[in-house]
Amino acid sequence: MLGLAAEFEFESFVRLAGDSASAPSIAERQVIARSATRALERQERLVARIEQLGGDAAEAMAPFDGIIDEFEQRTTAQAWSERLLKAYIGYAVADDFLRLLAEGADAESRELLTSMLGDPDYAELVVSQLSVVVGDEVAAARLALWGRRLVGDALAVIQGAVVRHPAFARLLERGSRVEGGEDRIQRVFAVLTAEHTRRMERLGLTA
Amino acid sequence: MLGLAAEFEFESFVRLAGDSASAPSIAERQVIARSATRALERQERLVARIEQLGGDAAEAMAPFDGIIDEFEQRTTAQAWSERLLKAYIGYAVADDFLRLLAEGADAESRELLTSMLGDPDYAELVVSQLSVVVGDEVAAARLALWGRRLVGDALAVIQGAVVRHPAFARLLERGSRVEGGEDRIQRVFAVLTAEHTRRMERLGLTA
Repeated sequence: MLGLAAEFEFESFVRLAGDSASAPSIAERQVIARSATRALERQERLVARIEQLGGDAAEAMAPFDGIIDEFEQRTTAQAWSERLLKAYIGYAVADDFLRLLAEGADAESRELLTSMLGDPDYAELVVSQLSVVVGDEVAAARLALWGRRLVGDALAVIQGAVVRHPAFARLLERGSRVEGGEDRIQRVFAVLTAEHTRRMERLGLTA
Repeated sequence: MLGLAAEFEFESFVRLAGDSASAPSIAERQVIARSATRALERQERLVARIEQLGGDAAEAMAPFDGIIDEFEQRTTAQAWSERLLKAYIGYAVADDFLRLLAEGADAESRELLTSMLGDPDYAELVVSQLSVVVGDEVAAARLALWGRRLVGDALAVIQGAVVRHPAFARLLERGSRVEGGEDRIQRVFAVLTAEHTRRMERLGLTA
């Protein structure tokens, strides 16, 4: 879990740094660049925790090398608003998944992970930038459709990771938030979808 | 000058973040990623200084948009050692040029710029990584040749900037390090070349 989180944060850093270079305004570029450096700071804290637990950070991260590429390659954003929504949904779904995993982890790792996830400045930027687009009915319908494709992609990547790493299924089963029964993993996906729906509504988009 | 420095540091941030993703080892990737965030921190301090002087940071940086691309597009690195040397030489020559410009600037801006330039961790990484290559005579000869092309590219980009921005020529003429006379600008390039030669020698390469 810590390896996944660390690799995810590292790749977020690289992606956000790249995104910042194509931001349409200096103000946006500075916010996104700063978010990138925060992702790296989180990654460094996760690496420190892995090493504190006696693990090898490189080994822990290696299985997740390219995890964001997997999401990125599924669909290509055409406009800046699509790119912004794509990154936002991708990070948010990943954060939600990491939170669910954290519930099954040791207390210190859980506390570390849940305390660091989320980037309010980046979320605020996305909400304020997309609110302009959302004012236009046709553009909003297009973005809503785009959002539905994106969440499907994000969930597919997560499903792949769960299948490849049985330890994730065990962590999810130990988690308190998703109640017992036979279809726990399926219910994890229901939780992720519900969180996504709430997020899209906050943006003023139909999920 | 502050606009050039700020834009340069921002583009360094983006480039270094991208480079970190293709580093051959986790240790290198972490050092380069950290260097990227330091470049952004420098840029943020420069932006703050521009605004403190009553300037508009976006306007100050705009004329230098793509300044690193201009250098990057001239020659393409084939191997990781070439990439590392390219980034190192590019940043070092740019830093030297900024230091010469700073000598003609107001005391506070000069102090800010000269105190922040250079990244010892990154330089140390380059020296230690390239020392392996330098042990191989054929590879060292190739890298030395590559270094000569790179410094030519870097100086050409700087010359272009000086021609387009007469304010730079004025700052360089006011600077104390390059003594008076008719060919001051030419002597600036002689200083940059001499610094480059010293740097290559430290790497064990013929300049």
